[in-house]
Amino acid sequence: MSAISEEAVKQLFTEARTYPGWLPEPVSDETLHAIYDFMKWGPTSANLSPARIVFVKTPEAKEKLIPCLMPMNVEKVKAAPVTAIVAYDDEFHELIPKLFPMGMGFLETFRSNRQFRETSAMRNGSLQGGYFILAARALGLDCGPMSGFDNAKLDEAFFAGTKWKSNFICNIGHGDPKSVHPRLPRLTFEEACRID
Amino acid sequence: MSAISEEAVKQLFTEARTYPGWLPEPVSDETLHAIYDFMKWGPTSANLSPARIVFVKTPEAKEKLIPCLMPMNVEKVKAAPVTAIVAYDDEFHELIPKLFPMGMGFLETFRSNRQFRETSAMRNGSLQGGYFILAARALGLDCGPMSGFDNAKLDEAFFAGTKWKSNFICNIGHGDPKSVHPRLPRLTFEEACRID
Repeated sequence: MSAISEEAVKQLFTEARTYPGWLPEPVSDETLHAIYDFMKWGPTSANLSPARIVFVKTPEAKEKLIPCLMPMNVEKVKAAPVTAIVAYDDEFHELIPKLFPMGMGFLETFRSNRQFRETSAMRNGSLQGGYFILAARALGLDCGPMSGFDNAKLDEAFFAGTKWKSNFICNIGHGDPKSVHPRLPRLTFEEACRID
Repeated sequence: MSAISEEAVKQLFTEARTYPGWLPEPVSDETLHAIYDFMKWGPTSANLSPARIVFVKTPEAKEKLIPCLMPMNVEKVKAAPVTAIVAYDDEFHELIPKLFPMGMGFLETFRSNRQFRETSAMRNGSLQGGYFILAARALGLDCGPMSGFDNAKLDEAFFAGTKWKSNFICNIGHGDPKSVHPRLPRLTFEEACRID
């Protein structure tokens, strides 16, 4: 298997940028389905697949989301055609009989160990968040992920009476090239990696 | 911007598989650098970039890793040319002056709020884990991510005296097609997503 094209690498990784501003171009429901149909195949521990996504698209849903945001994120969310809430199911383990039929005792382990359950939801739900961002970029969309919001308030507004919990949110659409900030530095290989 | 090629989508998402068995083909240090040079550009909250990677490649380093594994993962790690420890820096916030020069008070917030620091390390370090897996696949490698190991024991063996902590581990190399299991099901869009 060889590397994907240089063009695709640029689109996914090396030239992709986080956009604060958005062009007024809509994103179709078909495209939202396509994002999920790519990201769902990414690997998770024991196929647990804890991530859940709410695509906030209608003006009514945006109105519910805006009071949950830190002030610096309000205009970004207003301008984006869609804001995805990347969440996880706090009772993801109850789907183990379907998602991991060999079981291996995981259902009982997760039922009895709250800490392990939370760590697994956060690890695997965030991994899936990474797949989500790169799936959106693979489809030609731009992303603007954000942690600047009140998770408890958002959960109350969107997930009351359910077991879903918010992780982070992510604007998707077509970024406004005029809005982009200068690129911030990254750590060098020597700062962030070792070969043992 | 249009979608990447169907071939690239298959390689990254829809036809990529998790491999338990590995062909005896090495992975060069240049390729390990290339993985990092793709993944480092993926977005993290305030550019915090908490992930750290140790590429376990030498027989001596493999020997240190093996006693930390759950029995079911020992043969997989022995066969893989490289096992990456996807870790995070527990004091990632001390690099904020370099990585996020505008600061915005985040350094003080992270210093004084241990819980927020841990959640941010896990969320953003795992997001970067997702970028890592897809970067390796983009380069034509296969992945075998695993959570089945003793994190505390691994941290003692590899990170004693440092602030790095393990998140998950991931075999990389060229997967043995004969080793692959039947594919497990995924949740449907309706089970995992909503459009509001």
